[in-house]
Amino acid sequence: MGKGGFTIGIVAPAARIEPDIAQAVMALAERLYPERPPILRFHPQCYLSAGHFAGTDAERAAAVVEIANDPSIDAVWFVRGGYGSNRIIERVLPALGAAARDKIYLGYSDIGTMLAALYGAGFARVAHGPMASEIPRRNGAEAVTRALRFLVEGDAATLEPSVGAAPTAAFNIMILSHLIGTPLQPDLTDHVLMLEEVGEAMYRIDRALWHITSNPAIRRVAGIRLGRCSLITANTPEFGQDEETVARHWCEVSGIPYLGRADIGHDIDNKVVPFGRWRPERR
Amino acid sequence: MGKGGFTIGIVAPAARIEPDIAQAVMALAERLYPERPPILRFHPQCYLSAGHFAGTDAERAAAVVEIANDPSIDAVWFVRGGYGSNRIIERVLPALGAAARDKIYLGYSDIGTMLAALYGAGFARVAHGPMASEIPRRNGAEAVTRALRFLVEGDAATLEPSVGAAPTAAFNIMILSHLIGTPLQPDLTDHVLMLEEVGEAMYRIDRALWHITSNPAIRRVAGIRLGRCSLITANTPEFGQDEETVARHWCEVSGIPYLGRADIGHDIDNKVVPFGRWRPERR
Repeated sequence: MGKGGFTIGIVAPAARIEPDIAQAVMALAERLYPERPPILRFHPQCYLSAGHFAGTDAERAAAVVEIANDPSIDAVWFVRGGYGSNRIIERVLPALGAAARDKIYLGYSDIGTMLAALYGAGFARVAHGPMASEIPRRNGAEAVTRALRFLVEGDAATLEPSVGAAPTAAFNIMILSHLIGTPLQPDLTDHVLMLEEVGEAMYRIDRALWHITSNPAIRRVAGIRLGRCSLITANTPEFGQDEETVARHWCEVSGIPYLGRADIGHDIDNKVVPFGRWRPERR
Repeated sequence: MGKGGFTIGIVAPAARIEPDIAQAVMALAERLYPERPPILRFHPQCYLSAGHFAGTDAERAAAVVEIANDPSIDAVWFVRGGYGSNRIIERVLPALGAAARDKIYLGYSDIGTMLAALYGAGFARVAHGPMASEIPRRNGAEAVTRALRFLVEGDAATLEPSVGAAPTAAFNIMILSHLIGTPLQPDLTDHVLMLEEVGEAMYRIDRALWHITSNPAIRRVAGIRLGRCSLITANTPEFGQDEETVARHWCEVSGIPYLGRADIGHDIDNKVVPFGRWRPERR
């Protein structure tokens, strides 16, 4: 830890944020830790704009590498999902040095591509959980507080309640589907795999769960837990099955144990899921 | 060929059709071939309904197997895409006998999952092309006529113009993305791979092209040709790159030659792309 306090570097591999998000998150951190607030270093790249993205591929990749390789930073907190991590990960990964391996990484949704790649490359402290960009949600401070308590304190109360001794991983369904069959697909043998979704039609959720569970390596997971699938868009005609029915179906077809629900999703209740066997230690 | 004339069996592995579609297609076939019309056998399963699908998984699978294994049928024409081939293919494939191997298969879009599986299982006469359900499109008779001329006559004028000596294959982008890393992913080594899309946002097209071109086996294709990407839905914010720009980008990143455009897509101009080295013989 840097002498100034626990230092969190914040970058945007995918979509950008407005500066007022950073102001609100820093104010929250000061309220939570009035005596020794963590240092939140929002990289200026978070505010860049290039079409869909928080800056060009080159700008986003450079910012991620800079923050990850900075030895004065303790944790990398990805600021927002959206779309774009996949466009830079193959530039980022080979540029990460020893200081990058020594950090905590936190994010989810599109950021799952970063988490998968880091975990696959042997990074030991990677976790799926809330992002800074969520503070404008109704009661969004709850999600951001959870992220800070996880990063700053290593608070086990922030973890998804089923997280135990078995290795774990969590992904957005579409993001994991797009990692299947690529060199970035992580080895999830014996892991409890938690999956969540937002803003997709039921036929797409069904199709992606078929895809994921059809992959021979995924069939070696210890089991699947289904997180929340929120804001499901209209299906024409009505799909006729809900997300848990299709998750159970594909688990049965593929021989993967269906383990029940997971307390994750695109909402303020989204709990933290550390990858692998890593469990944070109370600081 | 059956004694009554060239016989086409028509089934619905995914979405259903209304019976008036079948009437219109049969009337068109009689106008095209007044002296010896092909026999179009629309399986009654085409009109079934079960939620999203043309009947339950069991009903759809049984109809496909029945038509494919019927020795009096010369060609299987999949009636419509939509979604659902993936839900039945693993029941269908092991049930196909020798008579099934002796047929032509035609369809596209969601049906790409059937084509991939059949081609991967060594079926020699599989093709990507128009479906009967397209007759209600404006000038849809052109697309249906092309399909009939391909099936009934083996007319080379129906083929996508770049189809030559090199093996070929064609897919909807999302469908191929969902086959990557599954046992159904076909070996496309040295193939010219043609890709088309409909009704997707640019970020999804970009993401799926990244996914497809990241797969090591796909990197062995001879090259990619981009078909039409129609009815692209809104991207927030504006994506800033069009489909050809992203296709060129991912070809460059992956080392796959970008070969230009392909005359395929979800429209009446959709040309036929036979899988592999098979080229139809004029009958």
